Amino acid sequence: MSKINRVLITGGTHGNELIGIYLIKKFKRHPKLIERPSFETVLLLANTQAIAAGTRYVDEDLNRCFNVPKNQTAKALSYENWRANEIKAEFSTSEQSSIDVCIDLHGTTANVGRMLILDNSDPAMQTLAAHLCDRYPDVRVYGSTHSGRHQDSLRTIAPHRIGIEVGAVSHGTVHAELFQQTEALIESILDYLEQHNRGTAPPPKNSLTLYQYVGAIDYPRDHQGELLAAVHPQLQFKDYETLRPGDPLFLTFDYRTIAYQGDMPVYPVFINEAAYYEKGIAMCLTQKQSLPIAYQLEGR
Amino acid sequence: MSKINRVLITGGTHGNELIGIYLIKKFKRHPKLIERPSFETVLLLANTQAIAAGTRYVDEDLNRCFNVPKNQTAKALSYENWRANEIKAEFSTSEQSSIDVCIDLHGTTANVGRMLILDNSDPAMQTLAAHLCDRYPDVRVYGSTHSGRHQDSLRTIAPHRIGIEVGAVSHGTVHAELFQQTEALIESILDYLEQHNRGTAPPPKNSLTLYQYVGAIDYPRDHQGELLAAVHPQLQFKDYETLRPGDPLFLTFDYRTIAYQGDMPVYPVFINEAAYYEKGIAMCLTQKQSLPIAYQLEGR
Repeated sequence: MSKINRVLITGGTHGNELIGIYLIKKFKRHPKLIERPSFETVLLLANTQAIAAGTRYVDEDLNRCFNVPKNQTAKALSYENWRANEIKAEFSTSEQSSIDVCIDLHGTTANVGRMLILDNSDPAMQTLAAHLCDRYPDVRVYGSTHSGRHQDSLRTIAPHRIGIEVGAVSHGTVHAELFQQTEALIESILDYLEQHNRGTAPPPKNSLTLYQYVGAIDYPRDHQGELLAAVHPQLQFKDYETLRPGDPLFLTFDYRTIAYQGDMPVYPVFINEAAYYEKGIAMCLTQKQSLPIAYQLEGR
Repeated sequence: MSKINRVLITGGTHGNELIGIYLIKKFKRHPKLIERPSFETVLLLANTQAIAAGTRYVDEDLNRCFNVPKNQTAKALSYENWRANEIKAEFSTSEQSSIDVCIDLHGTTANVGRMLILDNSDPAMQTLAAHLCDRYPDVRVYGSTHSGRHQDSLRTIAPHRIGIEVGAVSHGTVHAELFQQTEALIESILDYLEQHNRGTAPPPKNSLTLYQYVGAIDYPRDHQGELLAAVHPQLQFKDYETLRPGDPLFLTFDYRTIAYQGDMPVYPVFINEAAYYEKGIAMCLTQKQSLPIAYQLEGR
């Protein structure tokens, strides 16, 4: 990673994820909190209409709208398509992004605690994530390379990008402790980027544990798509814990347990995320990987 | 309470409170579960358009629409006003309700566990609530007489009514354990009403502890109504616990603690309910009352 000149912190890609929204508003009131000597930090409230409405989106999920071809006619555009183009125009100059790093704030009803999201195998962001895990042992890192988010999410406007997903928090609410913990992470990221620019970023102490997305499971449904089961009580809120073949996965509304049928242990995340019911996702499955990081420090 | 002839179980007054909705759908598939020899049980999915949309409401809160004058012109009606009239027409014959008891299912993002809601001082429902508390020591009873719900809620269509509010559950999700616990409560209520009709309802063993609504507190906001604080971490999820003058109430986004300024201890409920942000309610305050119940058994 070469010198960082401009960092974007964005919240409200989903208009009902209030922690990110109120953090951006706080930083707008107190810009000194995000100022660092060697780079500029800019702020974005992404889905402004959804934020005003208090909903995830108006027409469609903004975080799936960043790979729409530019030549689509305005008439065919949803509000979020239009807003994605506006955001791209604001932060890109033709093929070049005007920002170097995007920090993208999200909340989830799943019990993920503080989760960093890496959309690709960018060594710089892996090194940053390993540094944050050294500092905050509760932090977990989710690899979304195979989930599609490296192609269509808002974060794709920047060459280097990291998502912060916190939970469990009900959409439409602020959870004060997660608010504080998210701000602490942002502060540490900005400090790290400042150290990077000065060539003093500390090498990570440990290898990086990555929960790499390998697929998703939908709820049992009838032929009309109607839900027939909920996440099993033994699995609810157990994000990152081992799910072995035969373990309880769902409990039908008639109280029959449906077991996990996979071939090998997996580590579910985003268990019972409210916004994923309509996407046909009861949880995302990950495999746990350990990545050595030390060799990736040449960028400094 | 004279003989019960017809009981209404209703879910989806709020279209994103999924536990009630999927319980009603389950009972429609398995009507034997709610059949009792001495009375008829009928089912209602209340806010059908909001249920389809997965939102709390379409135009306004259906559970505040049941005191609108009947002579309002159709043009001025919101969807929920219209739907309220439709529901009233379905279950009323002029001034008479065709149902004797309404069991109304709700979910909340607040940590209320299993909460019964009594909108007035109906001795029959107080006796039922005391019976349920005997059977399920986790159950708490909230008195909403002074909150307005005895005038404008869907439950007002029945002479006897009881709300079941369960949480913490994120809107738009099912929580399997709370689903089971809600069904168990409904089963016990129907069993009790059957015993009532037979004259074999057991007398409550204990007096009734009632958390009686005495007021509500809004979040600290700026002059534009913008949120400035969240529920304090020490209060989050602490529904029914004693809040004393001077105890932490809110944490501002700048991390200043705002203490409770009241004159006497209160017992907050609906702490950090997502749907109440727009209503200007951070939590409802209650006073704890102990009601003797034994003398109210003459109805049997």
